[in-house]
Amino acid sequence: MHADPITLQQRFLKLKSNRLFEAVVISIIVLSALLIGARTYQIDPTWSKILTLLDYSVTLFFLTEISIRFWAEDNKRDFFKSGWNIFDSLIVLISIVPLAGGDLALLGRLIRIFRVLRMVSIIPELRILLNSLLRAMPQLGYVVILMFIIFYIYAAFGSTLFHAINPELWGDISISLLTLFRVMTFEDWTDVMYETMEVHPLSWIYYLSFIFFTAFAFLNMVIGIVVNVMEEENRKAYAEAHQDDPTLQDVMTELRDIKQQIKASKILEP
Amino acid sequence: MHADPITLQQRFLKLKSNRLFEAVVISIIVLSALLIGARTYQIDPTWSKILTLLDYSVTLFFLTEISIRFWAEDNKRDFFKSGWNIFDSLIVLISIVPLAGGDLALLGRLIRIFRVLRMVSIIPELRILLNSLLRAMPQLGYVVILMFIIFYIYAAFGSTLFHAINPELWGDISISLLTLFRVMTFEDWTDVMYETMEVHPLSWIYYLSFIFFTAFAFLNMVIGIVVNVMEEENRKAYAEAHQDDPTLQDVMTELRDIKQQIKASKILEP
Amino acid sequence: MHADPITLQQRFLKLKSNRLFEAVVISIIVLSALLIGARTYQIDPTWSKILTLLDYSVTLFFLTEISIRFWAEDNKRDFFKSGWNIFDSLIVLISIVPLAGGDLALLGRLIRIFRVLRMVSIIPELRILLNSLLRAMPQLGYVVILMFIIFYIYAAFGSTLFHAINPELWGDISISLLTLFRVMTFEDWTDVMYETMEVHPLSWIYYLSFIFFTAFAFLNMVIGIVVNVMEEENRKAYAEAHQDDPTLQDVMTELRDIKQQIKASKILEP
Amino acid sequence: MHADPITLQQRFLKLKSNRLFEAVVISIIVLSALLIGARTYQIDPTWSKILTLLDYSVTLFFLTEISIRFWAEDNKRDFFKSGWNIFDSLIVLISIVPLAGGDLALLGRLIRIFRVLRMVSIIPELRILLNSLLRAMPQLGYVVILMFIIFYIYAAFGSTLFHAINPELWGDISISLLTLFRVMTFEDWTDVMYETMEVHPLSWIYYLSFIFFTAFAFLNMVIGIVVNVMEEENRKAYAEAHQDDPTLQDVMTELRDIKQQIKASKILEP
Repeated sequence: MHADPITLQQRFLKLKSNRLFEAVVISIIVLSALLIGARTYQIDPTWSKILTLLDYSVTLFFLTEISIRFWAEDNKRDFFKSGWNIFDSLIVLISIVPLAGGDLALLGRLIRIFRVLRMVSIIPELRILLNSLLRAMPQLGYVVILMFIIFYIYAAFGSTLFHAINPELWGDISISLLTLFRVMTFEDWTDVMYETMEVHPLSWIYYLSFIFFTAFAFLNMVIGIVVNVMEEENRKAYAEAHQDDPTLQDVMTELRDIKQQIKASKILEP
Repeated sequence: MHADPITLQQRFLKLKSNRLFEAVVISIIVLSALLIGARTYQIDPTWSKILTLLDYSVTLFFLTEISIRFWAEDNKRDFFKSGWNIFDSLIVLISIVPLAGGDLALLGRLIRIFRVLRMVSIIPELRILLNSLLRAMPQLGYVVILMFIIFYIYAAFGSTLFHAINPELWGDISISLLTLFRVMTFEDWTDVMYETMEVHPLSWIYYLSFIFFTAFAFLNMVIGIVVNVMEEENRKAYAEAHQDDPTLQDVMTELRDIKQQIKASKILEP
Repeated sequence: MHADPITLQQRFLKLKSNRLFEAVVISIIVLSALLIGARTYQIDPTWSKILTLLDYSVTLFFLTEISIRFWAEDNKRDFFKSGWNIFDSLIVLISIVPLAGGDLALLGRLIRIFRVLRMVSIIPELRILLNSLLRAMPQLGYVVILMFIIFYIYAAFGSTLFHAINPELWGDISISLLTLFRVMTFEDWTDVMYETMEVHPLSWIYYLSFIFFTAFAFLNMVIGIVVNVMEEENRKAYAEAHQDDPTLQDVMTELRDIKQQIKASKILEP
Repeated sequence: MHADPITLQQRFLKLKSNRLFEAVVISIIVLSALLIGARTYQIDPTWSKILTLLDYSVTLFFLTEISIRFWAEDNKRDFFKSGWNIFDSLIVLISIVPLAGGDLALLGRLIRIFRVLRMVSIIPELRILLNSLLRAMPQLGYVVILMFIIFYIYAAFGSTLFHAINPELWGDISISLLTLFRVMTFEDWTDVMYETMEVHPLSWIYYLSFIFFTAFAFLNMVIGIVVNVMEEENRKAYAEAHQDDPTLQDVMTELRDIKQQIKASKILEP
């Protein structure tokens, strides 16, 4: 058995858990975010070259870091069991693919933007926050479906009735869906309404009922989440506070026990 | 007694409860929704004919499906006791009325849009969700009346004072109500205000007080619902958690029992 | 002692509590609201005369009704102890003051609009709702003061720095306050910002910080109310549910009692 | 030992705690706020001189007041341990620095605006409110970071893809951040979207996904605060209500005690 690789893995494991190393990784991610930001400014060629050089260094650093984390793992398969590891690897691997010239250069730049997301994967608190956000999603599932049905029906009505009035807003069902989303955000919705009211004077019913339905469904969704979250928290808090406490059931058992004892003592007495 | 119809009803009942059949019905509803969407696009005659054919098939399928569900029912009267069944039947019956040419064709298309609502009647989770939304409605009743009174008074003031300034916004009380709704959604409300402020410099009081009152009433409505829903949930959760638990009352009864026993034993002793 | 007035008062008391009489009063209020609404439309002279006649009848009816309620009271002073009675009397008295011609006629019409508010004073549920809204007000007191301080400081800054840029928006501190309210409602706030950013490129800090502060204060206010309302409800619910229940303190008292009994029985034994 | 300074300190301490003195200080702060407001109006020279004179008087009064509070303190170092004292001293000291002419005069006026903030430091209820607002801040920390990451990534995408379409909105990453904030407030966001959709027809995905993500994160933040605040309140309320109550644990201890007694009495009996 060769001693070297084990030592190396252990060293990597030590390095990976090192607080200083973590700080360095976070700094490099921030640096890469700043590089991305800097690229959006008009810069002279000298600086542009420096940015490109720094870009390469960051790519190299990320590649090294992910390799260290991979080698530090005892079972290599476990590495890919974590969604965050896969995510990190993908970001790193895609950005080393040499992308030269024109549209591909643009694509390369766009992909490198996702590096900022590594901030979420490296800071545990953000990871927990994102997980809890994602966990809240499925609860919303059916409300989202219901809301989509409302949207779809109104969009179908809208594009059927108002098609001729303004094709740019009501041309087909997909454009109508976008227009309805706009109405829901109250973004110049009266302009849209006044236009159709000139042809169909009663079309304010269409808009007002739509606003009421979506606002009502949205409100219910929010209240639903608040109630769900609070219930869960209450249950947790209650369980934590009382887990070692005796229950009323315990008290009753004890009492019945005493009654038995007293009865027994009575029999012995006379 | 003829054996056939009974067998048929049982077969229908089996079919109705079949998971695959439900999946087929949902798919057909989705298809009918897509057909409605497709109609809003500019399509060439060949496709248009195919769409019409598909439309007929969907209508036929829905007719068959509702018949199966009707025949599967033991007591035919019970079928019409469910609001959803009546709703489904209406949707299907209206869309088979032959509507030919011009405005009637348009009406036919509009009616067929409601078919998408069958999605709600077929998916139990959506039906529950909608029921809970509808159940929250009456709680809102009096807040809605109060809000309408606020709106009506402000609209009466608005159309009396600002009538001459801009008849398109303040012409009569119904137009004023619409304008106030617009102000409540903050949609270009300053344009409306600046216009009247040129004639009545103090009219900002009108707008600001209106915004405050409606926002305050709305806020109270939301809080009212949240509190109601949470209370109900808490009561349910509490009842569920403690239904089989002994109460403090039980403990007290037991204790008094023990006291009696001890007293009794004392009398026997000397 | 003359028997007549007493009988009359009792009759009035009976009438006042009569459900039919209440329904009639509500109908007349609705009628008066409709009259107010009808006045905002362009109407021909004949109808106008009918409206005026109806207006007089409503005034007469209200005068009769308030008199009945006044006479029905045992102690006439108690009548004016209720804020709602004073409110009703004021509305009625002001609208019988003969207002003739020009601006005074307009004033008369504006005063009559307040009659719609009688709807709130006559329907008990609305009265309760309004009372609970008013009761929530003082809780908001200090948040409103804090918010006003934020507004005032920003308005002072705004009118000092941006005065020369657009006097219509930042002319003096009161105009600035209105502009800031507009910014808070997100109503074309970027137009306001882009204008000042041309002179002071960093003025986005002013707007963004203002939006953050007011949004944060507003959010806190809402949360404060929610928490307050729910606490009160919880306390009430808890008190209701457990008012006749024995407490753990009762259980302890009982237990100590039993211990004493056992001790006593031990002394008797040997 | 000289008796005088001690007497003076005690006098100051008495004065500082005097309710009338507090009322006078608050009045002077309100006066200084009104002076700041008055300055934003066009005023003739005579009034301007009076304002300047009043300004000097207010400065002098504030200087005296802070000196009294400083001298009233037993241990002078403790004075600067309170953040509010440091804040008050800073406000007063900066505004006595003689600022003459041009830009410096403007700066002097701007600094004097902060005097209004002394209202917060003098009214205890506002101080408590502000403290509770500030205490809620750190909870938001990670959500703000997450939101900033979302903003940063979208801004990087935006300025890369839409740079050429409208440099005024998407010129570089900082302008893009501002544009995205505008989109989040729904302020004419469709204008921004329609413009980029002409070049990239699918860019509605960019805006809608951004709105969904930020709305979702914002919603979660609000819910997080509500839940946190309510939990804390519940814990406090529970602790207050039950602090002197015996616990179920106490009941169990008592019961075991009784059991021991009964056992003991049994041994003595035969």
